[in-house]
Amino acid sequence: MPKNALYAQSGGVTAVINASAWGVIEAVRAHPAHFGTCFAARNGILGVLNEEIIDLDQEDPFTLAALRHTPGGAFGSCRFDLGDADRDRRQYERLVEVFQAHDIGTFFYNGGGGSMDTALKVARIGELMGYPITAVGVPKTIDNDLDCTDTSPGFGSAAKFIATVVREASLDVESMHTSSTKVFILEVMGRHAGWLAAAAALAQEYDGQPPMLILFAEVPFDEADFLTNLQRTIERHGYCVVVVSEGLKKKDGSLYAVAQSHDIYAYTQLGGAVPRLAEMIKKETGHKLHWSVVDYIQRAARHLASKVDVEQAYAVGKAAVEGVVAGHHSFMPVIRREASVPYRWVIDRVPLERVANVERGMPLEFISPDGYGITQACRDYLRPLIEGEDYPPFLNGLPCYSRIRGVLRPKRCPEFRVDEA
Amino acid sequence: MPKNALYAQSGGVTAVINASAWGVIEAVRAHPAHFGTCFAARNGILGVLNEEIIDLDQEDPFTLAALRHTPGGAFGSCRFDLGDADRDRRQYERLVEVFQAHDIGTFFYNGGGGSMDTALKVARIGELMGYPITAVGVPKTIDNDLDCTDTSPGFGSAAKFIATVVREASLDVESMHTSSTKVFILEVMGRHAGWLAAAAALAQEYDGQPPMLILFAEVPFDEADFLTNLQRTIERHGYCVVVVSEGLKKKDGSLYAVAQSHDIYAYTQLGGAVPRLAEMIKKETGHKLHWSVVDYIQRAARHLASKVDVEQAYAVGKAAVEGVVAGHHSFMPVIRREASVPYRWVIDRVPLERVANVERGMPLEFISPDGYGITQACRDYLRPLIEGEDYPPFLNGLPCYSRIRGVLRPKRCPEFRVDEA
Repeated sequence: MPKNALYAQSGGVTAVINASAWGVIEAVRAHPAHFGTCFAARNGILGVLNEEIIDLDQEDPFTLAALRHTPGGAFGSCRFDLGDADRDRRQYERLVEVFQAHDIGTFFYNGGGGSMDTALKVARIGELMGYPITAVGVPKTIDNDLDCTDTSPGFGSAAKFIATVVREASLDVESMHTSSTKVFILEVMGRHAGWLAAAAALAQEYDGQPPMLILFAEVPFDEADFLTNLQRTIERHGYCVVVVSEGLKKKDGSLYAVAQSHDIYAYTQLGGAVPRLAEMIKKETGHKLHWSVVDYIQRAARHLASKVDVEQAYAVGKAAVEGVVAGHHSFMPVIRREASVPYRWVIDRVPLERVANVERGMPLEFISPDGYGITQACRDYLRPLIEGEDYPPFLNGLPCYSRIRGVLRPKRCPEFRVDEA
Repeated sequence: MPKNALYAQSGGVTAVINASAWGVIEAVRAHPAHFGTCFAARNGILGVLNEEIIDLDQEDPFTLAALRHTPGGAFGSCRFDLGDADRDRRQYERLVEVFQAHDIGTFFYNGGGGSMDTALKVARIGELMGYPITAVGVPKTIDNDLDCTDTSPGFGSAAKFIATVVREASLDVESMHTSSTKVFILEVMGRHAGWLAAAAALAQEYDGQPPMLILFAEVPFDEADFLTNLQRTIERHGYCVVVVSEGLKKKDGSLYAVAQSHDIYAYTQLGGAVPRLAEMIKKETGHKLHWSVVDYIQRAARHLASKVDVEQAYAVGKAAVEGVVAGHHSFMPVIRREASVPYRWVIDRVPLERVANVERGMPLEFISPDGYGITQACRDYLRPLIEGEDYPPFLNGLPCYSRIRGVLRPKRCPEFRVDEA
């Protein structure tokens, strides 16, 4: 009897992570000679430690297939890193206990660079603990900061949403600027890398169109220079659309959003860069302004997913399984770009060591010399990733998303408290 | 020779106001015996005062037809109210001067309740100044606060966008709550009425689903009661999704967002209720939270327009013209609901006096007894308004929106300074 497969989701979720889940589940079921049943852990690796193993055979097949167009993490995700094997050995013993109890032979972990470190730690359990387990990563992150891959599933859809709403909101500001709002600021995610802020520039059809000023996490914020550029833009266009990375930094490297506790701006620890930026612009220029923070909305906006992104998300899930069937282990499927126009890509594999805890920043040559825009190279890189639409079905005016029942397998192991591990 | 028609846009724009513009333009052109050329004023009534009259014959016909799926105000909008005729007579003399110079016989003003007051003032110019002009209103506002109409074009699309992103972001929070975010807050527009906050409740498929707590502009904010409900929700569901109207008020009737200048919350004048609410929740409960402010994005989101809304926007534009052809004047087309399931509606007319400067609030019986949700009556009212999708065309992954050239007619009148009027 072949051993069972276990799939789990980790880190911040995306609009397409469930498409990867479906890619894994469907492919596992297509190889009955290689895998027993496909299970899913609830809330990522925490679900393994807690022995919360979802029995996918209890799910309606249509519910599972609809994961392809459902945002969020259908099985629950977690922000939790495994400790080191020599320091936190009880965690590893517990993993083996649960794997053994449910006869798990393969573990698929769907996440970003941090989660790939967890996948790698699980992959070493065989060697370390004598329990043979194949662990494979499945890439995911809207931050686009996984290394060795053309892009990370989740990024393209968030990028498409951001570019679209910037184009739309800019038309709004343009209509209003003569007698009302002159500045509109949008804050997007990206603590360390400005990929999503860069994607906003795709809204431009030609030079000078919104967003006029992009504030990247990579470019230390120079308030005076920014204000000069803001005023110049308003003189030229009558208004200015600004996009800012939540990770905008001051010249000393500290976050623009985070201030001293006695500072009037102290509140901004909650909201990122925008409230502080808006206050500063209002005080220094007096312009009427509006601002928006899209937060989770940008990474959950499945209603406007990129077709390329959905296809890649599904493909990396499927390729993870097929790689195991072909005898590989401890790898993560990656996307290799073969051409940009038209976009051609294939799936390849890299060892987990290559991607675990590695963060790929945006190349500095992707940022224009003035620091407020993107270069043609960046535009050429980004454009294919948002191509195509893949609308979910709608019912009563709203998208129909899938919701799994999540029936757990009966527990066979003793209770375990993660926080004591 | 029939006289020319002049169309203009006023107030905050919407995802579908240009569909009304196209309804007006197409219908005017369909009645050459009744109208000469169709012009548009740049930036609403300001464009009339400034003699900025766009010659629509200079626009590509495809550009004009594409207005049907283009958000924002293609001709520019304004926040400007005409003064009273007895106090600001120079404004009225100027309007007559410009109307006369361009042989304008009909004026279509597309806006909300305040703009209908301007339309009404223009309608009285014949009587007052001896220059015969027919003035007609075309309804528009995402606030849904125009009186005498089942709904205001623009609201349905904003409502659909809000309900969709709440459903999507809630799936995200639900995935994350075990080891991360427990509270997600979304701020929506609505200074006086909670219509858009109410629309968020359409995201629910059954009781207890997100959004669990809605804070309406109509319900004085009781911090202690809210915190009790928040904690109870988190105990029951593990997380809580909150939607708040920007116009949330304290018990004394003042805005929750606006504080004393010495207050640490003073900054919130810029951002509405959310930053203050987030800070309070974090301080009182310690829960990890995320928040979002959709601002202009919610009213510009043409990529997810309601088909019903687009059709109604077009229909009120067309009906405004056809009403004039039928001999009516000083009216605004309104939508009359004939049935909710399935939704059936017809266009009717009301005198401008009935809608000018009137704000329709949300009926209190639409808010559930606990103050944090909507009643079935509200749900039955809202549901048809978000029905159907009407996607814009996409190119290179992004929606293709129309941009008019906006060639102005040669000026024939002396310079005029609005601010001196």
